[in-house]
Amino acid sequence: MAWDTEGTRRALLDAAVAEFGERGFSGARVGGIAKRAGVNVERLYAYFGNKAGIFEAVLTDQLVELLTSTAVQGAGPAAIGDFVVRFARAVDAAPTIARLAAWEGLEFPSPVDAALRANRAATKVAELQAAMPTLDETAARHLLLAIVTLAYGWQVLPNLRHIILAGDTRGTGDEARIRSIGVALAEAAAGWSLGESNP
Amino acid sequence: MAWDTEGTRRALLDAAVAEFGERGFSGARVGGIAKRAGVNVERLYAYFGNKAGIFEAVLTDQLVELLTSTAVQGAGPAAIGDFVVRFARAVDAAPTIARLAAWEGLEFPSPVDAALRANRAATKVAELQAAMPTLDETAARHLLLAIVTLAYGWQVLPNLRHIILAGDTRGTGDEARIRSIGVALAEAAAGWSLGESNP
Repeated sequence: MAWDTEGTRRALLDAAVAEFGERGFSGARVGGIAKRAGVNVERLYAYFGNKAGIFEAVLTDQLVELLTSTAVQGAGPAAIGDFVVRFARAVDAAPTIARLAAWEGLEFPSPVDAALRANRAATKVAELQAAMPTLDETAARHLLLAIVTLAYGWQVLPNLRHIILAGDTRGTGDEARIRSIGVALAEAAAGWSLGESNP
Repeated sequence: MAWDTEGTRRALLDAAVAEFGERGFSGARVGGIAKRAGVNVERLYAYFGNKAGIFEAVLTDQLVELLTSTAVQGAGPAAIGDFVVRFARAVDAAPTIARLAAWEGLEFPSPVDAALRANRAATKVAELQAAMPTLDETAARHLLLAIVTLAYGWQVLPNLRHIILAGDTRGTGDEARIRSIGVALAEAAAGWSLGESNP
């Protein structure tokens, strides 16, 4: 195992997902990550430099996974509704990504790897515009922001769901509801492109 | 000052808002709160029992303030759009409330004071239904959940805005955009009441 560098790197990343997801950036311990991975802490430093370095690597790794697994398919607001359902489901299936983003938002003055991540967001913005050619770029960016904020927020603010729904889970029909939210946001975004919010 | 119990309590709550908002529940120190308030730590324990006790008191205090300051006024989806604008603005003006809710979601297995807060959410749900009488209660609850999740998420996930908007702040027109998101969500919610998500 000592020479299996890709395997060791992967083990450290997986361990870091768990440690940061549970404890946040400040609460996580580098030694705790190494221990979870069964790897000597010196090797962690050799790979990632420091705690910020491995946090950055983990966040980027998780985001790549999430965004590449959820392409926008089809055309019109219905395609956006479909994307929102798949995106929310992907976030549900890998809740740590939303937790990492929330810890980052709460604990970091500015995002890590901002340029790389902005590039990746631009790809998603282009996909939204391809599905709805009337969207200008600003409108598409704000649409993506609303979608990602909701999908992440549903994950990292579970207390709101607990309190606001008050245990009332009749007609859980979450998928239909989420789809209609996506369609409604897409229709609203079409209005933003008409100059209503760019006077 | 020693006998000014309401003033002391208020000073401790204000100090706790700052301490928890910056450091979260785990990171905050009871001694740090007392020091910020210029109050002996024994008095903090006398008032609030322990760290969880003062966190609970702070969260409740802030939520009461936020919800009572933003009534739903008028009728129809336009009234919801107007409410969302005022609610998002109130969260912007007191960002710590969203941060406290996010720390709670990340660090607590279940919400503090859930019954009291559920009661208060029910009042807001009734206001939404009064503005849009066709909404059934489940639809109104899910509408409120989407609104609060977005307004809090915009605050506690500032990294998403930074990355997804990529500095593109042309036509900041945030108010018009937020209003149209509120209207769109209200229109979508009207569909939920027609049984589309309660098959």
